[in-house]
Amino acid sequence: MAEHVYKKIEIVGSSPNGMEEAVHNALSRASKTIRNMRWFEVTETRGYIDEGKIEHWQVTLKIGFTLEE
Amino acid sequence: MAEHVYKKIEIVGSSPNGMEEAVHNALSRASKTIRNMRWFEVTETRGYIDEGKIEHWQVTLKIGFTLEE
Amino acid sequence: MAEHVYKKIEIVGSSPNGMEEAVHNALSRASKTIRNMRWFEVTETRGYIDEGKIEHWQVTLKIGFTLEE
Amino acid sequence: MAEHVYKKIEIVGSSPNGMEEAVHNALSRASKTIRNMRWFEVTETRGYIDEGKIEHWQVTLKIGFTLEE
Amino acid sequence: MAEHVYKKIEIVGSSPNGMEEAVHNALSRASKTIRNMRWFEVTETRGYIDEGKIEHWQVTLKIGFTLEE
Amino acid sequence: MAEHVYKKIEIVGSSPNGMEEAVHNALSRASKTIRNMRWFEVTETRGYIDEGKIEHWQVTLKIGFTLEE
Amino acid sequence: MAEHVYKKIEIVGSSPNGMEEAVHNALSRASKTIRNMRWFEVTETRGYIDEGKIEHWQVTLKIGFTLEE
Amino acid sequence: MAEHVYKKIEIVGSSPNGMEEAVHNALSRASKTIRNMRWFEVTETRGYIDEGKIEHWQVTLKIGFTLEE
Amino acid sequence: MAEHVYKKIEIVGSSPNGMEEAVHNALSRASKTIRNMRWFEVTETRGYIDEGKIEHWQVTLKIGFTLEE
Amino acid sequence: MAEHVYKKIEIVGSSPNGMEEAVHNALSRASKTIRNMRWFEVTETRGYIDEGKIEHWQVTLKIGFTLEE
Amino acid sequence: MAEHVYKKIEIVGSSPNGMEEAVHNALSRASKTIRNMRWFEVTETRGYIDEGKIEHWQVTLKIGFTLEE
Amino acid sequence: MAEHVYKKIEIVGSSPNGMEEAVHNALSRASKTIRNMRWFEVTETRGYIDEGKIEHWQVTLKIGFTLEE
Repeated sequence: MAEHVYKKIEIVGSSPNGMEEAVHNALSRASKTIRNMRWFEVTETRGYIDEGKIEHWQVTLKIGFTLEE
Repeated sequence: MAEHVYKKIEIVGSSPNGMEEAVHNALSRASKTIRNMRWFEVTETRGYIDEGKIEHWQVTLKIGFTLEE
Repeated sequence: MAEHVYKKIEIVGSSPNGMEEAVHNALSRASKTIRNMRWFEVTETRGYIDEGKIEHWQVTLKIGFTLEE
Repeated sequence: MAEHVYKKIEIVGSSPNGMEEAVHNALSRASKTIRNMRWFEVTETRGYIDEGKIEHWQVTLKIGFTLEE
Repeated sequence: MAEHVYKKIEIVGSSPNGMEEAVHNALSRASKTIRNMRWFEVTETRGYIDEGKIEHWQVTLKIGFTLEE
Repeated sequence: MAEHVYKKIEIVGSSPNGMEEAVHNALSRASKTIRNMRWFEVTETRGYIDEGKIEHWQVTLKIGFTLEE
Repeated sequence: MAEHVYKKIEIVGSSPNGMEEAVHNALSRASKTIRNMRWFEVTETRGYIDEGKIEHWQVTLKIGFTLEE
Repeated sequence: MAEHVYKKIEIVGSSPNGMEEAVHNALSRASKTIRNMRWFEVTETRGYIDEGKIEHWQVTLKIGFTLEE
Repeated sequence: MAEHVYKKIEIVGSSPNGMEEAVHNALSRASKTIRNMRWFEVTETRGYIDEGKIEHWQVTLKIGFTLEE
Repeated sequence: MAEHVYKKIEIVGSSPNGMEEAVHNALSRASKTIRNMRWFEVTETRGYIDEGKIEHWQVTLKIGFTLEE
Repeated sequence: MAEHVYKKIEIVGSSPNGMEEAVHNALSRASKTIRNMRWFEVTETRGYIDEGKIEHWQVTLKIGFTLEE
Repeated sequence: MAEHVYKKIEIVGSSPNGMEEAVHNALSRASKTIRNMRWFEVTETRGYIDEGKIEHWQVTLKIGFTLEE
């Protein structure tokens, strides 16, 4: 494992229901085109407000995945 | 929309139950005096501990709202 | 002047034409309700894109103004 | 209270179920050896992914506690 | 206390005599219009120089205060 | 819109004429291969100097675009 | 000296009288259990307010000390 | 050269032998699919430990490369 | 070129007309005493306000130049 | 592994010979009293100079280790 | 004043007696060779410890001064 | 030593062979004109790439040296 090379991409997930679901939605979408995702790092948490209530949360992630040889 | 001007204020919400409820409490209180809130950004997440358990979460937000013409 | 006290507020200005005009728009709107503005600091420059072109720039400023005695 | 001295330590908690549970697990483990914990600050939120899903969340906290005289 | 909501504002205090007096001057002015101030955080320390000597110190604070229900 | 997922990429644009044109050049090039660009964030502004004059400006942007379902 | 190993810990000192006394109080308490303290770095300066006046200052330090062989 | 547009990607290289070899491994893998790499910036240096010794170093790089017209 | 050594200095340029002219003014003044300037990095953008309008922009740059052998 | 709790400590290693040896020296000393070290993060690289040459490198690390149940 | 150009230098002052005196010592020494100093910004506050007490404070400043035409 | 005043300058060293040699080259060049260099701090590590290989490393240092009375 010591010679692995990873790529990190930055994805923003959204959800009306909360921060964790926004992360799940981001990973779920990313997994359609990326294999071998290994970890994520939350870099930003924000949200949009409508009529004084949260319309949706928006969480920015860096996702690391293994580059195949 | 391209000429809108927004103001950002910094609010700290608290909740004994979790981070997301602390955000909701902050927005709920802010909506009493501010109209046209548009977005929030989480800038700090912390909490207070009593007898080894979380007494309350405390989340700092920046809230952006439209300044009326 | 050595005993002055200032307040800093955070304002976001927009413009379809550029970063500097977004700053001017923010200051122009702020000057309607704030007297004695003394300086600004740009903290964030961003923009929104439509059809591959910049729809508007959005610049976040901190504005410092003198609190009257 | 004005003369209290506190120490801050850095702990990483994990949970398969979410960010808040990871914080609870960190505090629960820390409370086994530390008395008088007073507050925590979240400094990093990340997680590990297996087969496209979150295997566990990992949250880094600074925990402040009172140093007894 | 767990459901309290706080607002944070940013104030710059000045003093010819030192950093701590600049903080006192900022709080003294702020207390004229704000009730229930609870804490401050120093975010910037600077000063102006005249003829090679400090003319006045200038300290930027964030001040947190309780928003009444 | 609340369930949208976005990707952010980092692009550096250049221009001999100024910062804003460097942003336009970056977006113009990016739009050749990316659809649905929504926003950009300026993260770095620099430039190269030749014979004491600016040869070209160089602006680093993060660009966010919608990932299609 | 070139092979020395140091440990850094984070301590928060308090004082009703000022920032420097808060640092002294932190070091005084730390010296009860730590030998060979070599340097400190101030990482945060804040304070608590009561009735519009500073109740106590609170200064966070990192303290470096030599680990004995 | 003044009108060039670059893309920056984030890659993590590993090596059991040291930081510089981890950078070389990252670049070597990236060069398989990217042409015209021009510069890199080290953003994070870390490593994994096994039995008290470094199992491998892990270095995160941003790599800039020219986007062809 | 691989063995070049550069020095970086920090200069603040001003202009009543805009950010880019403030950069030009900084470089123009620096070129009177420094040869071989190679690049600049904008680190801070601010301005002073008079009667609600920008009196002058103020841009802080780091300027890199080659140290001759 | 998903429920593991880790502690992070901050250690400064030194070496006359280079950055990597400074890291090795830090880990070697830490391993005398800490079991189950898992990873490190380099947070600062500096050095001391004598007669124009590096007397020793000094590297600050955060070291993460598993807290046993 | 709108066309002034300033240079900023970084100076570290020391004092056995406190932070403010360390700033005064830095400015006093700088004023021997620099004319037209206008402002300073504190960027780092630290100190050295001997026998559990502060041997001297050490404060890092950026000092801005007007470059003459 | 408690009353010493230091100046910090920023130098960028290069080397085709590695990060540590880039630091040595920077110090070697600086020592031609600066006496009494005491410490350095690495603030940036980057490099330039040619044909998929590192052409040279480039390391930015702050160097502190004693200002003579």
